[in-house]
Amino acid sequence: MPRVSQDQLDARRHEILAAARGCFARFGYEGATVRRLEEATGLSRGAIFHHFRDKDSLFLAVAEDDAAAMVATVRRNGLVQVMRDLLEQARTSDGDTAGWLGSQLEVSRRLRTDPAFAKRWAERSAAIAEATRERLERQHEAGVLRDDVNVEVLTQFLELAYDGMVLHLATGRPAGELSRVLDVVEEAVRRP
Amino acid sequence: MPRVSQDQLDARRHEILAAARGCFARFGYEGATVRRLEEATGLSRGAIFHHFRDKDSLFLAVAEDDAAAMVATVRRNGLVQVMRDLLEQARTSDGDTAGWLGSQLEVSRRLRTDPAFAKRWAERSAAIAEATRERLERQHEAGVLRDDVNVEVLTQFLELAYDGMVLHLATGRPAGELSRVLDVVEEAVRRP
Repeated sequence: MPRVSQDQLDARRHEILAAARGCFARFGYEGATVRRLEEATGLSRGAIFHHFRDKDSLFLAVAEDDAAAMVATVRRNGLVQVMRDLLEQARTSDGDTAGWLGSQLEVSRRLRTDPAFAKRWAERSAAIAEATRERLERQHEAGVLRDDVNVEVLTQFLELAYDGMVLHLATGRPAGELSRVLDVVEEAVRRP
Repeated sequence: MPRVSQDQLDARRHEILAAARGCFARFGYEGATVRRLEEATGLSRGAIFHHFRDKDSLFLAVAEDDAAAMVATVRRNGLVQVMRDLLEQARTSDGDTAGWLGSQLEVSRRLRTDPAFAKRWAERSAAIAEATRERLERQHEAGVLRDDVNVEVLTQFLELAYDGMVLHLATGRPAGELSRVLDVVEEAVRRP
């Protein structure tokens, strides 16, 4: 049996994640059956679940991939930039971004009723919240931020706007004035 | 056969809506089967679907009920007050408010893929947006609102915050600092 290098394993894992994301975007969480995941990845269920324990793990791994990318953007440019990128993606991705966000909403009930699933999801959100809080604290020290409201409240304000954007795009509504709305959001946390 | 008065019909309709709301909150949209709707209402499917054409119509009627109450509150006290009420309900309703919001998220995929369903849902949202816009326009004329950003953008900013609150509560996250976050939201549309 030939040895498989770590690079090859990583590449395969990456391919599976990209194909699974498209499958969840198109069919939703429930609709992305193992059969459809096999078709989307071009791999057998045995090969897929060699890399990911089950469908939940695969779904959460796609979401963790997103979260890691978001944390990097938040550190560099802030959560408002994440929202601007998301808006741009939704404009250009032909429904895939909205579909993927929609599949995330589908699992909302499990976040209330399935503690193990909720815990793994919460770790992902916590990393983004933490990066947002750290960035706002640095901005606070630099005197860029308003100082009549504490950083925790401002962090949760930005998260509220992010959640609002997710729901807006996931339900397929037009972008409307969202780009200018994000200017209002950004300005609301800054020193006047 | 005894004549049934309009009042009796309205009362029956109201009872069905309340029971159906609880059923959707507890089991989600998919999980609220006709059997469970029969149990929740104490009526046969024949009796339920005498008042509502099908499960979709029943679900949308509950949502329209909400929308009518929201429009009344928006006219009187604004969309931020709707959010404050929702937060208070989520704190005191033992999961029912979160559950009902969660069942609304479950249908997110149909809003992108089922034009007839999406149209009925959009009419409900449009009434709330319209009431919000009208109220902001009155506030604008009264000189209470900031005037460097137009009313349409401010309307969509408030809607973004409302959507964010729905997603936050529907996924069962704790209220955290949301009450103070709403102060930031409210202040962001006002004249400094």
